[in-house]
Amino acid sequence: MSLSYDSSGVRYDQLDGFKRACQRAARTTAGELAAHGYAEPATTRGESAYLIEAADHYLAHVEEGLGTKNLVADAVYAATGRNFYREIAIDTVATIVNDLATCGALPISVAMHAAVGDSGWFADEGRMQALVDGWAEGCRRAGAVWGGGETPALQGIVNPATVVLAGSAVGRIAPKHLRITGDVREGDAIVFLASSGVQTNGLLLAPSVIYVAFVRECQRRGVKLNYAAHVTGHGWRKLMRLEEPFVYEITAPREAPALFKFLMEAGPITRREAYATFNLGVGFAACVAPAAADAVLAAAQATGYDAWLAGRVRKDGARKAVVVPSLGLAYEGDTLQVR
Amino acid sequence: MSLSYDSSGVRYDQLDGFKRACQRAARTTAGELAAHGYAEPATTRGESAYLIEAADHYLAHVEEGLGTKNLVADAVYAATGRNFYREIAIDTVATIVNDLATCGALPISVAMHAAVGDSGWFADEGRMQALVDGWAEGCRRAGAVWGGGETPALQGIVNPATVVLAGSAVGRIAPKHLRITGDVREGDAIVFLASSGVQTNGLLLAPSVIYVAFVRECQRRGVKLNYAAHVTGHGWRKLMRLEEPFVYEITAPREAPALFKFLMEAGPITRREAYATFNLGVGFAACVAPAAADAVLAAAQATGYDAWLAGRVRKDGARKAVVVPSLGLAYEGDTLQVR
Repeated sequence: MSLSYDSSGVRYDQLDGFKRACQRAARTTAGELAAHGYAEPATTRGESAYLIEAADHYLAHVEEGLGTKNLVADAVYAATGRNFYREIAIDTVATIVNDLATCGALPISVAMHAAVGDSGWFADEGRMQALVDGWAEGCRRAGAVWGGGETPALQGIVNPATVVLAGSAVGRIAPKHLRITGDVREGDAIVFLASSGVQTNGLLLAPSVIYVAFVRECQRRGVKLNYAAHVTGHGWRKLMRLEEPFVYEITAPREAPALFKFLMEAGPITRREAYATFNLGVGFAACVAPAAADAVLAAAQATGYDAWLAGRVRKDGARKAVVVPSLGLAYEGDTLQVR
Repeated sequence: MSLSYDSSGVRYDQLDGFKRACQRAARTTAGELAAHGYAEPATTRGESAYLIEAADHYLAHVEEGLGTKNLVADAVYAATGRNFYREIAIDTVATIVNDLATCGALPISVAMHAAVGDSGWFADEGRMQALVDGWAEGCRRAGAVWGGGETPALQGIVNPATVVLAGSAVGRIAPKHLRITGDVREGDAIVFLASSGVQTNGLLLAPSVIYVAFVRECQRRGVKLNYAAHVTGHGWRKLMRLEEPFVYEITAPREAPALFKFLMEAGPITRREAYATFNLGVGFAACVAPAAADAVLAAAQATGYDAWLAGRVRKDGARKAVVVPSLGLAYEGDTLQVR
């Protein structure tokens, strides 16, 4: 058997089945918003953040988790005494706020959820303080306040050797036209922003990049992003998260980062699996009108991001796919069910 | 050794030490709010929900978790085949939204965080659907929309036999004078609202009461709550969460619910430990001006809550304490460190 998420306790069919049941039930509660003066936008379910619409703004709400990356930090800590919990905390904030940013929402407040199996986990002062400092640093990079959190000890539920890291954010889109709605059109340019490594679905300990400042700068310059995707779980397949069918043709992939080359050449993972699972050096992707591509690249550069023009959007009837012709890769729409 | 949280992997000194480190670091991020047009209210840190102040409203943000109550549901399910995950889900929503309500914030959106150790946990359709249905029901009881969530499979972190249940909420206080600020005065009446059992820090499977409708009804009637406390962990000590020192004198405690009487009389738990740890039939408490007490009781009755006048607030210099003279109980302020 080849390496995949199946062997790591993650079966996306089961998770996605649960997610769909949640979304069906969640939709039945939309009427509760009216008493608060809000409404549910027609297309928000299944996007990366939940949006709530008022007359002159959207509120955005997201709950997200790090995944299992901290197990790697635990192993490194045990083997070398080097503690990477500062990076791990920034990573967790990144996974929360980048989801907001894909909708055009800027995070205002980020809350921490750190669940341990035994409160003794916090007795390691260095690790505990690294986690705290990293969370605050992540919030600053995102331009958000650290707005509290929850830190339970859950004996019998969480492995006492480690921690569940997750959290939530509240964001806002104002004025409303800054919302990134997914109005992709044939011929749109696809811009990639480099990741720092394997991002939050990964194996290395460089913290994920927080892309909030890029989205904010595009807004400030009046440069419109038609769609944005945060590339984490599902790898490059995440590009086709939009409901409407398009073919996302990546004509200028960069060389794979060294770790992934090693995994594909020496390890048990195929190229097809790698690009379907990991970010392969791409942390954030945006679809923009061809005439706006240069302005998007300039906004990225001005805020310190490594961005390039990576491909274009084609229309091919009802076909939905991500294709990388130079690598012989094609992922059809039915390989991604996250909505 | 007597029964206490110490024997269950929860040492509040370690947890509270971490919480205080978080709060110190979190305060350093408050300046990030200015660019969003918000500010941090001087007294919000350490309250049950984090508030963000705008010209004409507060936003409220909270992240909370169920604790380990679902382990009891797991044991009951294994022994009897009866699945209580609907109740468990309502409970989780209750613990999130009641924290908002203590600040006078009404929840708008509630997000789920359900982390499993193996995605196979979701393959039990009945249990999975009960969790989904209960979460939606909890949102309706809270008058909030179910705004998405996160459902990761965390192999090696979470026990594959169970689930970590938590979540977050976004709320709002408008107009701003509806905020419950903690302006308690000597002579204030203490009103208790009954719980459904042992609430979320407990052992039974009746879902916790959601007190949002009580707070909303007090607001609608123009009845002011000077302070509100959600009684969960720390039991009745939670009444003295406010920084300013007062003595909270409970003159009319009800008889303890049967389970607690049994635990105190037959079990290893002392009365002093029980009232310091469990809710003992009290789920929510409010301090109100003596002249408003009848109006508060009427608001509770009109919305279906079982409420009674339980005591009064006294000033005794710098002493902070919760006392129950008829039971011979007195908890001094230094037994509670949650700020």
